[in-house]
Amino acid sequence: MTSRQLHLNAFLMSAGHHEAAWRLPESDPTGSTAVEHFVALAQLAERGTFDSLFLADSPVSRGVARRPSSVLEPTVLLTALAAATSRIGLIATASTSYNEPYNLARRFASLDHVSHGRAGWNIVTTAGPEAARNFNLDDQADHASRYRRAAEFVDVAVALWDSWADDAVLADQQAGIWADPERVRPIGHRGEFFSVEGALNVSRPPQGHPLLVQAGSSEDGKAFAARYAEAVFTAQQTVEDARAFYVDLKTRTAALGRDPETIKILPGIVPIVGSTEAEAAERSRLFDEHVDPEYGRAQLARTLRVPLDHLPLDAQLPADLPAEDEIEGAKSRYTLIVELARSERLTVRELILRLGGGRGHRTFHGTPEQVADTIEDWFSTGAADGFNIMPPALPGDLVSFVDQVIPILRDRGLFRREYTGATLRDHYGLQRPAGRSGEVAAIA
Amino acid sequence: MTSRQLHLNAFLMSAGHHEAAWRLPESDPTGSTAVEHFVALAQLAERGTFDSLFLADSPVSRGVARRPSSVLEPTVLLTALAAATSRIGLIATASTSYNEPYNLARRFASLDHVSHGRAGWNIVTTAGPEAARNFNLDDQADHASRYRRAAEFVDVAVALWDSWADDAVLADQQAGIWADPERVRPIGHRGEFFSVEGALNVSRPPQGHPLLVQAGSSEDGKAFAARYAEAVFTAQQTVEDARAFYVDLKTRTAALGRDPETIKILPGIVPIVGSTEAEAAERSRLFDEHVDPEYGRAQLARTLRVPLDHLPLDAQLPADLPAEDEIEGAKSRYTLIVELARSERLTVRELILRLGGGRGHRTFHGTPEQVADTIEDWFSTGAADGFNIMPPALPGDLVSFVDQVIPILRDRGLFRREYTGATLRDHYGLQRPAGRSGEVAAIA
Ligand SMILES: Cc1cc2nc3c(=O)[nH]c(=O)nc-3n(C[C@H](O)[C@H](O)[C@H](O)COP(=O)(O)O)c2cc1C
Ligand SMILES: Cc1cc2nc3c(=O)[nH]c(=O)nc-3n(C[C@H](O)[C@H](O)[C@H](O)COP(=O)(O)O)c2cc1C
Repeated sequence: MTSRQLHLNAFLMSAGHHEAAWRLPESDPTGSTAVEHFVALAQLAERGTFDSLFLADSPVSRGVARRPSSVLEPTVLLTALAAATSRIGLIATASTSYNEPYNLARRFASLDHVSHGRAGWNIVTTAGPEAARNFNLDDQADHASRYRRAAEFVDVAVALWDSWADDAVLADQQAGIWADPERVRPIGHRGEFFSVEGALNVSRPPQGHPLLVQAGSSEDGKAFAARYAEAVFTAQQTVEDARAFYVDLKTRTAALGRDPETIKILPGIVPIVGSTEAEAAERSRLFDEHVDPEYGRAQLARTLRVPLDHLPLDAQLPADLPAEDEIEGAKSRYTLIVELARSERLTVRELILRLGGGRGHRTFHGTPEQVADTIEDWFSTGAADGFNIMPPALPGDLVSFVDQVIPILRDRGLFRREYTGATLRDHYGLQRPAGRSGEVAAIA
Repeated sequence: MTSRQLHLNAFLMSAGHHEAAWRLPESDPTGSTAVEHFVALAQLAERGTFDSLFLADSPVSRGVARRPSSVLEPTVLLTALAAATSRIGLIATASTSYNEPYNLARRFASLDHVSHGRAGWNIVTTAGPEAARNFNLDDQADHASRYRRAAEFVDVAVALWDSWADDAVLADQQAGIWADPERVRPIGHRGEFFSVEGALNVSRPPQGHPLLVQAGSSEDGKAFAARYAEAVFTAQQTVEDARAFYVDLKTRTAALGRDPETIKILPGIVPIVGSTEAEAAERSRLFDEHVDPEYGRAQLARTLRVPLDHLPLDAQLPADLPAEDEIEGAKSRYTLIVELARSERLTVRELILRLGGGRGHRTFHGTPEQVADTIEDWFSTGAADGFNIMPPALPGDLVSFVDQVIPILRDRGLFRREYTGATLRDHYGLQRPAGRSGEVAAIA
């Protein structure tokens, strides 16, 4: 094995990432609410020695007609998956805009305890006004203040996890002292968004902090990632864009005094694998055939913030779209979609097909060798530390990835044959953050 | 079997309910954060065919020196226990004062899906200013407005669970229609405390609604229970008090037009079981010996809201304690403790011993027959529909209850020998609430 190791995350989603996956005869269209569906996927990904599983999330229902839209809450579902697996990491998305830090820090600490150190948190700010309306607001806060709140939220969560020293629990039955009160301290936080006294009511998690993951690539998003993130999910259409993003984010991280090795960059890819090129192309066509252009057009109109009648299917995008700085929702995804359409001069219909597989993540088909080649190319030329694997249909395309692509990556010495560590941090090669007594020791 | 069946809930708590349980040589003093400890307890309770498990909760850390104080978040821990069991119900406490209804309704819906209909919610308002300070507040809201918020919170949660009709998901792969948008409706709630647009993003839970449980016995608490609760936990020191409470709550429930059979009243008891009377008394003494009177005194001073120096250990309680209506924290528990001390003319030291086992819940010791006699007496004379069993030490006292007391209750025809239903509602003999299409059918 080479010393630099590839990291792979399995991004699970109902019947798969392709918007039409649930319609394939092979799919269980009601799997999104069935724990058994996810248990099978988790065990499959663990057999493939993936670093982690990942669940996206948004606290809102935005139309149920066209896609599986009943979504189990990720910390609950991942706890169920923790019980069905033993090594794979478990990354749950949770919003800093619509949670309280005390409750969320506690839930992730609990998941980390229950899973013996396998919890990760994908920190998102949640784009769109609809979610705000489930939480006593008429509209979302603006993009910049959502990211300010996210930063303060993470500061509070980290302080809460660190409110217990690692050696706080004495459990001295004779003396009747359960924990040393000197080693469990209030945090006394008072900030712009939160006042939190602390301490947390859960002891320090096995990993110190759950792994901190981030997934927004706007300017504010990158600044946030450089400061807080240990792993970053991102959507990149070309290897050149991915390299530029990679250099940018590693440079920002180093500029803040962090070792750039401590932030792992994981672009999302939607690989459609076939035993032969013809089979792969055939499967890709199968997905395309199930795309509903009217549904895709409505989605696109919402993302671009234009009326539907501005998007005739066989024309290109209108010229007068808003600039990124007018977008208060998901900035980086907006720009990616507009640039993809403009650079390749795609019609709306073509764009919809391109977005159907991964909503902007790179979608491609090929033989197992070809998929492994792309992965190796990106990995070895400074575009990625690993990948967020987004199988278009589940379980089918995760089965082919595990059985056909991973053995090649292993044979090339890029990917583990078995787990060597116990925690999610171990898998990503990231250290456990020192706790309070560690700091005291460092000062003394 | 008689037709009226006893219901038993196993109230789990770290090393047990007795404050000194963790100090017994038989106890694992670090079990409170170990999922394995709770898995073993859950499987034991399921072997005893208990209706349900229950976890208390409060989002605050209030001193860690004297008792196991690292507490896993209940919806997370119960999800882990769902995976390790198949029939027993799972009741998690969650606060209406320090959560958002959208997030909490979703978490309980998710637990109900993952456990195939075994979720229950113990609805509490959370007493004390310390918790408030973890949620951007300087002090708690007053008692009355906490209960008003609780009522609106439950209204919103119920509306969210019902926002999906039971038959909303069509999963029509051919037509490409996943769910019928007419059967998934926004709730458009605007009230004193919450504005929530909806719909929920999880389909209707298997039980319709998770079982609604309540556990505060003040006037406001009883009014709330009569309107919303399907099971009620309560602390009662004597069978007479328990009967009076039982009649009161059933009457209030009937007065609101509900069938009084649809609210199950479950007083908490802390039974110390020994094979002989002498053994039981010996075990009771063992617990008493481990009580720390200074710790008990500090707890009592906090509950009674008097300075420590007002509580000399060998004197009775001061005469000038506040009246219940001056208490903004836990009203009914306050009154229970004061009345217990006054009616039995207990010294502070004696009172501390009486509270050590169950914080006000009836604590008693006896042979398995004697414990079964007390249970049958309360059950058959209108004091209880069942019991909230609070073993003083865990697992030890749950083992004796399951192996020695439950067989007697079964032989007397009072308690099930095996589960006959699949869901938590089945176990308690409570109907699944009709959903939206049910309403439509009723109108048509
Ligand atoms: C792989 C990946 C997964 C994401 N998952 C979520 C998610 O689950 N919930 C969410 O609100 N946003 C998610 N996002 C979106 C980002 O968090 C962010 O909201 C969006 O990219 C806008 O951020 P920006 O404005 O910084 O670009 C994800 C992004 C990527 C690349
Ligand atoms: C068996 C039992 C369990 C309880 N569990 C909790 C709990 O977990 N969290 C909580 O805040 N209160 C709990 N309570 C307390 C009540 O919910 C309530 O806060 C307290 O009794 C004060 O309510 P009251 O003012 O209506 O009497 C419990 C009460 C009983 C009887």
